[in-house]
This record gives sequence, C-alpha cells and structure tokens, in this order.
Amino acid sequence: MSYPWTLDPDRCFSPLLSQSSLARSLYEEVKDLPLICPHGHVPPSLLSNPNASLGSPAELFVIPDHYIFRMLYSQGIKLESLGVPSQDGTNVETNGRKIWQLFAENFYLFRATPTGLWIKDELINVFGISEKLTGESAQRIYDQLESKLAQPEYSPRALFKRFNIEVLSTTDAAHDTLSEHASMRKEGMTSVRPTFRPDAVVNLDAPKWRKNIDTLADVSRLEIRDYKSFIGALEQRRSFFKELGATATDHAALAADTQTLSNTEAESMFSRALAGNANASDAPRFTAHMLSEMARMSTEDGLVMQLHVGSRRNHNAKVFKTFGLDKGADIPVATEWTRALEPLLNHYGNDDRFKLILFTLDETTYSRELAPLAGHYPALRLGPPWWFFDSVKGMERYFDAVVETAGIYNLAGFNDDTRAFASIPSRHDVWRRVSCNWLAAETLKGFIDEEDASEMAYDLAYGLAKKAYNL
Amino acid sequence: MSYPWTLDPDRCFSPLLSQSSLARSLYEEVKDLPLICPHGHVPPSLLSNPNASLGSPAELFVIPDHYIFRMLYSQGIKLESLGVPSQDGTNVETNGRKIWQLFAENFYLFRATPTGLWIKDELINVFGISEKLTGESAQRIYDQLESKLAQPEYSPRALFKRFNIEVLSTTDAAHDTLSEHASMRKEGMTSVRPTFRPDAVVNLDAPKWRKNIDTLADVSRLEIRDYKSFIGALEQRRSFFKELGATATDHAALAADTQTLSNTEAESMFSRALAGNANASDAPRFTAHMLSEMARMSTEDGLVMQLHVGSRRNHNAKVFKTFGLDKGADIPVATEWTRALEPLLNHYGNDDRFKLILFTLDETTYSRELAPLAGHYPALRLGPPWWFFDSVKGMERYFDAVVETAGIYNLAGFNDDTRAFASIPSRHDVWRRVSCNWLAAETLKGFIDEEDASEMAYDLAYGLAKKAYNL
Amino acid sequence: MSYPWTLDPDRCFSPLLSQSSLARSLYEEVKDLPLICPHGHVPPSLLSNPNASLGSPAELFVIPDHYIFRMLYSQGIKLESLGVPSQDGTNVETNGRKIWQLFAENFYLFRATPTGLWIKDELINVFGISEKLTGESAQRIYDQLESKLAQPEYSPRALFKRFNIEVLSTTDAAHDTLSEHASMRKEGMTSVRPTFRPDAVVNLDAPKWRKNIDTLADVSRLEIRDYKSFIGALEQRRSFFKELGATATDHAALAADTQTLSNTEAESMFSRALAGNANASDAPRFTAHMLSEMARMSTEDGLVMQLHVGSRRNHNAKVFKTFGLDKGADIPVATEWTRALEPLLNHYGNDDRFKLILFTLDETTYSRELAPLAGHYPALRLGPPWWFFDSVKGMERYFDAVVETAGIYNLAGFNDDTRAFASIPSRHDVWRRVSCNWLAAETLKGFIDEEDASEMAYDLAYGLAKKAYNL
Repeated sequence: MSYPWTLDPDRCFSPLLSQSSLARSLYEEVKDLPLICPHGHVPPSLLSNPNASLGSPAELFVIPDHYIFRMLYSQGIKLESLGVPSQDGTNVETNGRKIWQLFAENFYLFRATPTGLWIKDELINVFGISEKLTGESAQRIYDQLESKLAQPEYSPRALFKRFNIEVLSTTDAAHDTLSEHASMRKEGMTSVRPTFRPDAVVNLDAPKWRKNIDTLADVSRLEIRDYKSFIGALEQRRSFFKELGATATDHAALAADTQTLSNTEAESMFSRALAGNANASDAPRFTAHMLSEMARMSTEDGLVMQLHVGSRRNHNAKVFKTFGLDKGADIPVATEWTRALEPLLNHYGNDDRFKLILFTLDETTYSRELAPLAGHYPALRLGPPWWFFDSVKGMERYFDAVVETAGIYNLAGFNDDTRAFASIPSRHDVWRRVSCNWLAAETLKGFIDEEDASEMAYDLAYGLAKKAYNL
Repeated sequence: MSYPWTLDPDRCFSPLLSQSSLARSLYEEVKDLPLICPHGHVPPSLLSNPNASLGSPAELFVIPDHYIFRMLYSQGIKLESLGVPSQDGTNVETNGRKIWQLFAENFYLFRATPTGLWIKDELINVFGISEKLTGESAQRIYDQLESKLAQPEYSPRALFKRFNIEVLSTTDAAHDTLSEHASMRKEGMTSVRPTFRPDAVVNLDAPKWRKNIDTLADVSRLEIRDYKSFIGALEQRRSFFKELGATATDHAALAADTQTLSNTEAESMFSRALAGNANASDAPRFTAHMLSEMARMSTEDGLVMQLHVGSRRNHNAKVFKTFGLDKGADIPVATEWTRALEPLLNHYGNDDRFKLILFTLDETTYSRELAPLAGHYPALRLGPPWWFFDSVKGMERYFDAVVETAGIYNLAGFNDDTRAFASIPSRHDVWRRVSCNWLAAETLKGFIDEEDASEMAYDLAYGLAKKAYNL
Repeated sequence: MSYPWTLDPDRCFSPLLSQSSLARSLYEEVKDLPLICPHGHVPPSLLSNPNASLGSPAELFVIPDHYIFRMLYSQGIKLESLGVPSQDGTNVETNGRKIWQLFAENFYLFRATPTGLWIKDELINVFGISEKLTGESAQRIYDQLESKLAQPEYSPRALFKRFNIEVLSTTDAAHDTLSEHASMRKEGMTSVRPTFRPDAVVNLDAPKWRKNIDTLADVSRLEIRDYKSFIGALEQRRSFFKELGATATDHAALAADTQTLSNTEAESMFSRALAGNANASDAPRFTAHMLSEMARMSTEDGLVMQLHVGSRRNHNAKVFKTFGLDKGADIPVATEWTRALEPLLNHYGNDDRFKLILFTLDETTYSRELAPLAGHYPALRLGPPWWFFDSVKGMERYFDAVVETAGIYNLAGFNDDTRAFASIPSRHDVWRRVSCNWLAAETLKGFIDEEDASEMAYDLAYGLAKKAYNL
C-alpha cells in the first residue's frame, strides 16, 4: 500500500496565518535567486568530469552520508550492513537494494530532523518521487531513482544548472594539485572554485602529517627543510589557489586559541616535528600560532579566512579503526572565543584588508561571545549555523541570539557545507524559508517595516554570502 | 471570600487555535495510557504496607517537599516554621494547620512555576478542591483534604490503581535489604520494582561511607576486605536486585568523568579508603572508575544504567547542618560530557548488551554534546528533562534542542523522579501535554505528518520509557 | 523623499491576536506607572545643574553611545569620523551634522536590534520626529532635533518630570565627592540618589589604583596606610553615600569568585599593592575577598549589594589606546556562579539583613545556576537582563529561563543601566511590553489566571524594583 507524499508549501513557516502569509510573500521574492555556495565539500571530480554520475540510490543517499548512517547506527544497525566501506578488510554489504531497503525501513528515525526534511525534499523535488518512503515502498522508489539517475538530466553538471548555482566552492587540501579545478578553469567553468584548507599540514598531530609535508613540497616544488620554507610553500600554494579562483581559506581546530610565537620558537617547534620529536604541547600551540599566521597572510593576499572550531573528531575508537574518518562520531565540545581570539584580533581585527568568518558548534557562544565580537571588530563575520545546527530550529536560535547584538550585516549569509551535491537546493531552501519566517515575525512585532524585511530577505538569501566571500 | 478554581482543559497548549486543536486530539489518544514510572523516589514502604497513609495535608504537601519549602525559604520564611525536621534538636513547628496556613498565604510565590501547576492539578484532580488556595481559603481546604486523606480511597495502594500506574521503580541503596520489595513480590505485586543505586558505597567521600560498606557486607553476607571482594559484593547485590524485579541501576555524580583504573590502582585506592587514608583525589577518580565498572557489569547482567550528573549538593552549609540532605540547596554546575564519557563509551558504547541513560542539569549540553552522542552510540539514550527542567518550558527546550539531532527514538521517554507520590499523574500529564503540543507544531510546520505525530505521541507517552528500561 | 515613521502600538507583542489583546490590556494597566531607575549611569551633573543641556543631536545620540558606534565600527566606519573623542591627540570629526549624516546613512545596520528600537521610539515619542531616519532625511531631522533641544522643555530636568521618573540612582566611584548629589539634596531633590561603586579602589589592578587610593583618603579625610585603615575609609564612604540617599552599592568583576582571607593575608596583600609590589595573583584574590567584605558591610549598614560579572573589558588594544574605556570593545566571557559564590553565601546568604542582586552576561547561567540559587537563598535577587541582553528576546529568554525555578518574586524588576538619559522611557517601555506579553502567554496557556497576571505585571513594572532596592 502506498501513501502519497507531498511537501507542505508553507513548511518551516509559523502556523500563525498572519505570519506565514507575510513569510510566504517574502519567500516568493527570494526563492528563485541563484544559489551562492561559498563553503562545502562537493568533490570537484563530480563537476570536472562531464561524464560523472551520482551513482546508485544507495551510493547517493546512504553510503557516503554520515548524517544518515550515524542515526541508523545509534539504533543498533551495523555500518557494515549499510555498505559503509571499511578500512581494515571487514566485509560490508555491497547490494545497493538491500542497503536501500534497510534505510527505508528505518527512515522513520528521521522524523522531525533536518535530514528527514532534506531527503524528503530531494526525493520529491529533484527526483519526482510521490509516495512516502517506507519499507513497503522501498523497492518501487529504488526503481524510479535508478532510472532517473541513468538519465543525462541527472548528471552532476545538468543538476548544477538546474539548481541555479551561481558559484560553488569546494574545500581542498593545501597539498592538493587542484588538477580538477585547473581543468574546469581551462574549460571556462569559473563557477566552481577551490578553497585553501591547510589543516593537514598545519596541525602537527594530523594523521600522516609528515607525508603531507612531503606532498606539499612536491606540489609547491619547494624544499621544506625548516619553518621558513614551510611558510614559503604555504604562501606559494595560496597564490596558486587564488589563480584558480579561490577567494577563501578554511581552518578547523578543536579550540579557538590563537597566538603569535617568535620565529625562533616556531622554527624549533617545526624542526622538532620534522624530526618526529614534537612535544605533547607543540601541536595545539603551533596550530594557534599558524591561525595567526594565516590571518597575516590573508591581510596580504586578500583570501577570506574561515575558522571552524569545536569538533572532537573520531570519538568512537572502534568505528574509527574499522571505518576511518567522518563516520558520524565527531562530537562537539564547549568553546571559548573571547580570550582565545584576542591575540589574533589584536593584530589583524582592525585591518580593513582582513575578513575572518567564524563557525561554532557551541550555541551558547552566539549571544555571549560571537555576536559581541562581530558587533565590534571590522574584520569579523559570523558564519551560519553549522553541522548539527544547520536545521530549522538551529537557524531560529541563531537569528534570535545574534541579530539583536550584531545585526544581520555582520553575518556571512548561508552556506550548505555539504558533500551531498543533490541536497544543496533543499538546504538553501530551508535557510530561505526560515529567514523569511523570522523576518515576518520581526515585522509583525513592529521591529522592522516591510521595506526593511524585503531588503533583509534578499541579503540573507544572496547578498551577504557574496559580499562576505568577495564573490 | 472564595475564588473558584479550575484547570484550563487546554493548559500547556499553544494559544494558537490550529495548534491547540491538533495538540488536543493527539493528547486525547495518549492521556489515558498507563503510567510508566521507571525512575523515582517514592518510598517502597508506602506501597508495601497496605495500611500506609499519605499523612496530614502538611505532611503530604509541605514538610517533605524541597520544591515547596526552598521557594518559601528564598523569601525569608524559616524552614523551622514549615515543620521541616531538624537534625540538631532545633525546635520546629508541629502544628499542621499553622504550616498549611503559611504555605497557602505564600502559594502566590509559585505563580508560573511547574510546582504551582502540579499542586493545583493535584488539589483539583486528586482531591476535588474547587476554590483557589489562598490564606483566606487555607483552613477550609485543609478540612477537605484531611477528610479525604482519612478515606480508604486515598490510601497509596488505592491511588496507585486510580492513577493507572503500570510500573513504578523506586530507588534503593545498594546496601538496602529490599525487605519491602521482597514482601511485595511475595504478594505478587510486581508492578513495583527496585533500582540499584550504589552511590553511598561507590563514592569514597559519601557521608558514612565506611559504615555503608559494613552494611553492604552484612546484607550481601560477603566479607569486604579489599577491592575484589567489594566488586564481588556489588555483583551479588545487583543479582539480588534483579531477582526482586530491578531492570536498572542509577548513579549520581558531580562530574561525568569516567575512566578505567588498573586493578592494582583500584585495589590500592580502595584499601586506602578502607583504612581511612584516602587521598584528596581518590574519591573523584574512584567514582570515575566505578562508573566504567558499573557499565561493565551492565553489559553482563543487562541492568540498564542511569547516570545523573551535575548537582553540587548541600550548597548551604547552615541549612545542611541544621536540616540535613535534600533541603533545596542543591545547585547545578556546568557539565562536560564529550571528553568525560569517552573512556566508558570506547569500552562499552558499541556493545548491544549495554544501555546507558543520561540526565543533565546543564541544558547547554542537550544540543552540543548529548544529542550528538546519543545520535551516534547505540548504547546511549537521553533521559527526560531533570529536576529544575522537569517543567513546561524545560521540556520545550529539550525537544527543540535534542530531536533535530538525535530524533525521538534515542530518548528514554518520561519519568517523574519524584518522592511526592500524589503528584505523579500531574507530572506525567504535563509531559504528555507538552509532547502533543510540540508534535502539533511539528505537524503544522510540515516536518511530520499526522500519522507520524500520532505514533510519536504514543512513543513519547508510553513506548519509549518501556523500551529504554526493558519493561 | 520622505517615508512616514510610526511606532506599532502593539510592538513587542505576539502577532497572535488573542495574546496581543491580553498583553495590551495588561500593558494599559502599567504603562503609566512612574519609572523606578535603581541602577544606571546618567551623569549627576545633568540633573544637579538646572541649566544643563543634552547637547547637539550628534552629542546626544552618537558620540557618547557605545551601543551606536560599536555597530558602525564593526562595518568599517572609523570612530574618528563619528566624533568619538581620542585620548592620544588623534584628530576626530567635530562637525555634528557630518557625524549625524554618517549615522543616518548607516542606521539600517540597527534593523532588528534593541538599539534601533530605542532610537526610533526616542525620536518619535520624545522628539516628535515623523519621518524615517535615512541618509536622505538626515539633515531635516537634525534641524528638528536641534530646534527641540534648544527649548526649555528639553532640558534634562524638564524631561525628568515628563518621563515620570520617581527615582533615579546614578553610579559613583567610592572616592567621588558627590558634590552634585549634595547640591541636589540641598535643593530637596531626593529623587536622584548616588550608588557606591568601589571597583576602582578595590580591584588592585584598576587603572590608576594608587592615585584612587589617595583620592579616597582625601575625600574620607582618613589616612590610608594599611588594610585596616582602607576598610575604615570604605566604611566611612558608605556611610556618607547613605546620608546622601544611597540605598545600594555596585560591584563589577570579571569572575564571580568570592572568598574570605585572614586579616593577616589581606593586610599583607594590601601592603604589597600600596608599595607597588602586588603579585600577579593578588588582584583577583583581593577582589574575591573584598566582595565578601562588602557583603559583610551590607549586612551592617543595609546597603543593597549589586554584582555585575563577566565582562572582559577593553578587548581591542588599539581602540583602547586611542579612545580609552567603554568603546564597545567589552566582550563577555562564560561565568561560573555556583562554586564561586559559595563562600560569600555561606557567610551571608541566610542573613535577613542582606540583599545581593546578581547580573550576568552568560545567559546559560540563568536556568542552571542563578535561578536555583535565587530560588533558595533568602539574600539573593536576580537583576534583569543586562547589556547585550537588555533586549526583547533577551528578556523573553530570561523570563523563560528563570521564572519556572525562581518565580518572579526573587527578581529585582527592571533597571535601564544607561548613560543615555533620553532613552530611559523607551527602555522601560520595552520591559513593560515584553513582561505583559509574556504574562499574556502564561495566562492563555493556563499557568496563571488574569488576577495573577495583573498583579505580576504591576510588580514587574514597578513593585519588585522598589522592594529589591529598598526604595
């Protein structure tokens, strides 16, 4: 038996009619604006290769998506049975239909979650599915998806156009060759841009750090024998990324600590690491120093700096050993920003050549630290709610917590931060809906007028992201 | 002059009609489901003794209830005048009518608090009171209550039936003889179950720890001369609790820290404590170790583990000295879960024989740490809002903060956690109302459909608690 | 082109008609109650001098208001161009019309902020402006303001009457002579009162601490040669402040730590500081001790103690160097209250002669620590949302977080905490509106009845502040 499946045209809006009606009229003005995607994790090969495909339904929706399989895992479903590739030779399910069946039977777990909302939107709006995903309907829906995915209209490049993406930035290691980006540039495909992410060479305790340094030396064609040449190689790579269209860098750290070491100290720390003798305290201190150093480079080359703080990665040792990174076991920790950023901001926070966009996994810092900081320092902008908070209620809490202190003009708009290419429109749609609903309430409560609301809706949907990332 | 007193049939629902009407229809489906009470502090003697009584109105509502007297105390009313028993010979009021009068005159202090709502519900629905509780009406209401309380229909056992309690778990010290539970079992009264709570023997700095160890040895009939025999005694008690119906254990700690000590280290720490020579750092480290050890036992005997973290007990030294424990002076502190639970979860978090239910007094950890943890580890479930947060807004914040990340199927449903037997229905009623109201909003905003909402209402009211506690 | 500018008569109320209509009727009962302003930073000279003026529009609205210029600064507008006086000889704009123009062109930055709401209310209700403030209308509005400000009806004293201020407390250094207050007393103007704020002599690391001690000695006419005479001088000043109408003291600290040092330790710490040899750890420990000492004095002289915790002052070194204190670069930090206040509360928290009002910049402590503390200790009251949180949503979060645990009778009502004299009515108006809207929701959800709501509205608007400050 099949249940019809439709999307509420007023989803994410308040059930109060006066509010939803104003929200809808604001939303009508912005829903078709091009998508600005200045930060995300779409593999560039998906777009550089004109013949790339999104794969099977299981490969598209389940196997690579840690939002999906972590929830199933939390209810006792083995990652092996979901086809998640193992690193240690453990056998995993390879039958896409079985994987899909298991997913569909447990899709009820995503009730009232953003993942549930995105998947439903994607299935209906991108793939034209019209019955509810359950164990019973699973194989019929699989058939439909499989047939759609085989059509040229469902190639990544065709969807890129259909999604109306104006610009999409990928995230690329500092030691990446950017060969896909180079080939897209050659084709004139300038709407896809790289982003410089040096974590793997900057964090002394990154897995395979030493090997990454060697790769960095190779791709930069510079010998890295000391701190000075390391800095030289990074500057060379930043310049190369810029040539291929990059406008931003991205940095992840467990803590927001920043500091400026003396050259001597940085040099001896780096030498210890090169020799494999780093002290226990070297890694966090060197990361803190390199964040300041990256800010320095940004003032010079104009790349916008992004900083993502607060994820304790690979919390589950057993899952990490068997399946590796990014398996839904990254857990946030409390973050301190006020004292941590003081050294960096005192050097560069007043510099009008510098822009730093902050992302947090600690919502308590929105109103306590981030909005007051962004409401003062010219260099700062606040990124949208990140990861677990890229959700309807996460966005509502974000607006409620930051705007009264920082206004909206210190925000960096939205980014989808996703690997799941086909989910991009649904993620932006949630942001646009929630923004408009929030602005409708602000209007009805007498805080802004309709002219303000209309301009703010445009900026939140489109203008702020372009401006924040110099796009 | 008497003010009529009635309960709004739509209390706790949104004032928006479309929402309250859907909430009401969901509530109609679940309001009469039996009550599952898997965690609480009702004294077992109240139910084991067929002749037990709830006492006088002052004994029922004021004298034992720290929710009540802490608020009166905060406004300068002496605990002595409320009849709270002293430990040091201080004279306290014994006239129940005077105590009741003082309470009634100050009942306005509970405006807009959950305590105020529970008391009102209890007075109206359990005792049939129909005029507002004020200084003026106090003695008339006392008369009515006194007469009701003398009737057999108001005995605890009669109310247990009337309240439609399917199962009620008490909380019992590891060194308790469980004589009341044994006698109820004998009678065939299996709806009342014990819960194994070893804090008083596991926390080396618990008051009277040494004496408790002796009692533990007595009741287990095992000599406790070292760590190994201590562990043996605990295992023996767990097995005894299971025989008498226990399905769970309960643990309280100031911090969530867990770790696994070597046997040698645990042994020498325990020996020091037995000899009265524990170091300052021994108690928290031993507690952290014993939490891991209790998780180990749970994987083996299947008892569900509960962990309540974050209460700084007996903050007010003067009140503690005169009146003892549980006098409304326990104050929460910030809690860290992500790093603290990592050792325990890395041992047992992936074990499908293990279930751990977490309770926090730090709401900031709902979305930042607890929901991401519960949305990944198969062993974890989140307990409902605890203590100060067992309230309408506390529940709303909880749903808003945890469900988007963890879904509802990683929640442990509701428990009332109360000593106040007669307040049990009103507490469950608030949870059921708030759940249904929340689900109504989710439905009207297009996140779930009515079929989802109906199933979720059932699970939140009944199914999840049964499942989480293996009942 | 001119846009008409009006205030929504139902601003701050819910867009739900049933709620706004009840909110409005509660608001009607309290909107004209006299204003109680027990804490703020209005310069006493504004009221002691009958000929004082509010200055030019730029001097009134832009130059002294860090709420305004910090937001403009965050968007790259130089403080120099806003006329903010420099400390180091840097030239700053002196043309009021140019400053006003820049402000008006950027007034859109304040959309959806409380500052935007206050300014609009002030311009319309105090100054009769009727067109929207934009770059285009800037000079016309400047003309109108300038002409109004020249009229006697716009003198501070005239406005004091028009605003219906019943009492206004200023904040004054312990070493202040209070000459303006003395002169107002002489005139019989008892509605303006001083508040004793000893931070500059109590915090050993305060700028110019040594010089402040000398001034304290001068004004108290007591030689300060050791800790004991320092305490004597403070006691003398408190007594002097009381004579001039003070009912309260005020204390600011980065952390809430309290402790009681031995006299010997306090003495040697103070001696080191006098000799210019304070240790690094002396200042925070001495502050913690002096907070307890101030509590002791309050039990003796009855002055209500206020404690403002959590602002990391002067975060931006460059701005501090050029422009000095209070330039919008004070950033909150996380605050711990439970353990920090334990020493002080264990000495004085049960003393019925003592009252301590707490203010936080860490909203997470509302429900976790402050409400449980205030809902137990007779001495404690919670101040209203402070600084960044003196906003519509800040107030809503505050009520939602504290009232369920502490009730409203452990709150200290509202205070405007402002330097901006002409904004006082608009700030109180926001509080009164938000309170009434919140009470309307509580009523419609069945938690309180209309009689309760009406009494609570009165207390929140007027009664609680008077009571908390012994006014």
